[in-house]
Amino acid sequence: MKYTRRKFIATLGTGSALLMLPSVPGFSKPIFSGDKKLSIALVGLGNYATNQLAPALQETSLCYLNGIVTGTPAKIDKWKQQYNIPDKNIYNYDNFDNIANNESIDVVYVVLPNSMHYEFVIRAAKAGKHVFCEKPMGLSVNECEEMIAVCKKAGVRLFVGYRLHTEPHHQVAMKFRDEGKTGIMYVQSEFGFKIGDPTQWRLRKALAGGGSMMDLGIYAIQAARYSIGEEPLSVTAQEYKTDYKKFSEVDETISWQMEFPGRHVSNSYTSYTTPANRLYISTENRWFNLFPAFNYHGNHGSTNRGELILPDINQQAVQMNTFSKCILDNLESDASGEEGLRDLKVIEAIYKSVESGNKVKV
Amino acid sequence: MKYTRRKFIATLGTGSALLMLPSVPGFSKPIFSGDKKLSIALVGLGNYATNQLAPALQETSLCYLNGIVTGTPAKIDKWKQQYNIPDKNIYNYDNFDNIANNESIDVVYVVLPNSMHYEFVIRAAKAGKHVFCEKPMGLSVNECEEMIAVCKKAGVRLFVGYRLHTEPHHQVAMKFRDEGKTGIMYVQSEFGFKIGDPTQWRLRKALAGGGSMMDLGIYAIQAARYSIGEEPLSVTAQEYKTDYKKFSEVDETISWQMEFPGRHVSNSYTSYTTPANRLYISTENRWFNLFPAFNYHGNHGSTNRGELILPDINQQAVQMNTFSKCILDNLESDASGEEGLRDLKVIEAIYKSVESGNKVKV
Repeated sequence: MKYTRRKFIATLGTGSALLMLPSVPGFSKPIFSGDKKLSIALVGLGNYATNQLAPALQETSLCYLNGIVTGTPAKIDKWKQQYNIPDKNIYNYDNFDNIANNESIDVVYVVLPNSMHYEFVIRAAKAGKHVFCEKPMGLSVNECEEMIAVCKKAGVRLFVGYRLHTEPHHQVAMKFRDEGKTGIMYVQSEFGFKIGDPTQWRLRKALAGGGSMMDLGIYAIQAARYSIGEEPLSVTAQEYKTDYKKFSEVDETISWQMEFPGRHVSNSYTSYTTPANRLYISTENRWFNLFPAFNYHGNHGSTNRGELILPDINQQAVQMNTFSKCILDNLESDASGEEGLRDLKVIEAIYKSVESGNKVKV
Repeated sequence: MKYTRRKFIATLGTGSALLMLPSVPGFSKPIFSGDKKLSIALVGLGNYATNQLAPALQETSLCYLNGIVTGTPAKIDKWKQQYNIPDKNIYNYDNFDNIANNESIDVVYVVLPNSMHYEFVIRAAKAGKHVFCEKPMGLSVNECEEMIAVCKKAGVRLFVGYRLHTEPHHQVAMKFRDEGKTGIMYVQSEFGFKIGDPTQWRLRKALAGGGSMMDLGIYAIQAARYSIGEEPLSVTAQEYKTDYKKFSEVDETISWQMEFPGRHVSNSYTSYTTPANRLYISTENRWFNLFPAFNYHGNHGSTNRGELILPDINQQAVQMNTFSKCILDNLESDASGEEGLRDLKVIEAIYKSVESGNKVKV
């Protein structure tokens, strides 16, 4: 990175192939994966799969869309046509396990409502497929632990769809963890928006497992965790509700505070009612402000030295390319199942703190 | 205010006389106070009086520096020379009460360490002088109530040095309270910096009454209160300490959350270790981000509609001019003693919540 007095421009090479390397040891030099591209089947053709993942898979160099799994037959024709998906790579939820016999699918990407992640990750692993799973990885620590164990036993890789791990601004955030070793860090992270349609699955406890915390708060937890580079020791949390009808089953708004080793502190907020979208990292002598922080595009960073200008990438494409690279070259990823599990540990502690009103150990 | 698509410029007229009108009823039109200028004596010639208030008093149109009260004789000569202060208007802490007989002083501005506010505001009031008092107004609700009562009985006005009440960005924040009547508001406010000299009075409980909360946290409380336009119903608070030696007597870092009527929520943070400086106000459809928020100069605002460009004023000059205007024209101020009292009510509730770990009613 080249710094000038008021403005500095990061020279991250994204290139046309949109490969961004995750920040794992031994992964600083490009590694070539040959000509192999992984074939991906998307499970669940909702908004995120339709509008983000499928288009992103048209821009990836190390993986491509080659299969779909859907519970809605009416969706099949359009996907087949638009993405040239062979009939033999189209499944429904009942015959999904037959994918075990389909050698033309390497990876299954689970994009279903949260409550279905557990079942479909396990079924995919048992079918011998590598798995990408949307966040939150599961509804509980127990689910995540079992998912990890099953994938391990099946010899398949498991990644969680943390699209920001490979986003340039968030990679700057991750670099602050070195700062934290010598001084005190404070992280403020918040993510909220006004959720629309009151009939959507995200507001049903049985499908979503929780409300804004499960969907948006997890980004704020993530951001605090990877900025500080430690696991929280304890949390305090407070819940607020304004619309008891819309949010009769799930949390609407939660604020929470986390204490980390090294006496670092974070202060967070999530809401399905009021917009909030920021990551702020402060050490005793430096700060980094990312506002907005958690968007697909247009995140904007500044530091005590001035504005930060970084490339605006296709997050989903880079994420899937990176996971594919990890599979092809047998590299570690910091968006593994273990990472998904760590967030659920924090989320369970937050819910416990909301319930008891007390500080809860993670 | 004139809005354009990406950028809007507020046309607040500040003029050369630096008179900005506070947002009180019936105060929207300029009112002329004749030729009268109030004569001010500063009590306590520390950093804030020396580097902010005295220079600001060279730019005010409705008041001027005409007296000093100091416990440090060595400071007198320089002040006398620099500001042409007559010998008869120079006092020490012992003979200060004689100011009652000095008709050439109208206002006493108490800029002493926090623990001395109570005594000197009361002595000034009993001497028949109007009083400006730095924040925090006192160390406790009891002190503030007595200060208000004594000023009332003496027939003098009492104002608290809330320099941001008349600052253009914060006046925009105050306008959000109307929004709050129809929707849900979330306010995030935080103010912290790394405090230097470990021997300073701000780190001594007997002089400061508290740490970052009393000095910086009060701005974050203020901001939440005047953005929402209501008094908090309850608070939860958490204290963190990293340096037990430096902060052996006072709080280093506190986070706290407030619930307001109308189900509005605020989430705040203050620290003497990690820099933080932001006010964020969000309603369901709009947001206002002020970053930095609490500086003397260079505060910067943006909204969901774009950047906000407002004049960078001399806050202390406008504040003192406004208080003077309120005295000269018998107008109400929203930086009154009652306002100072309200903050102490919140601060006492925060300290109680820190101690008990429970939610505390304000």
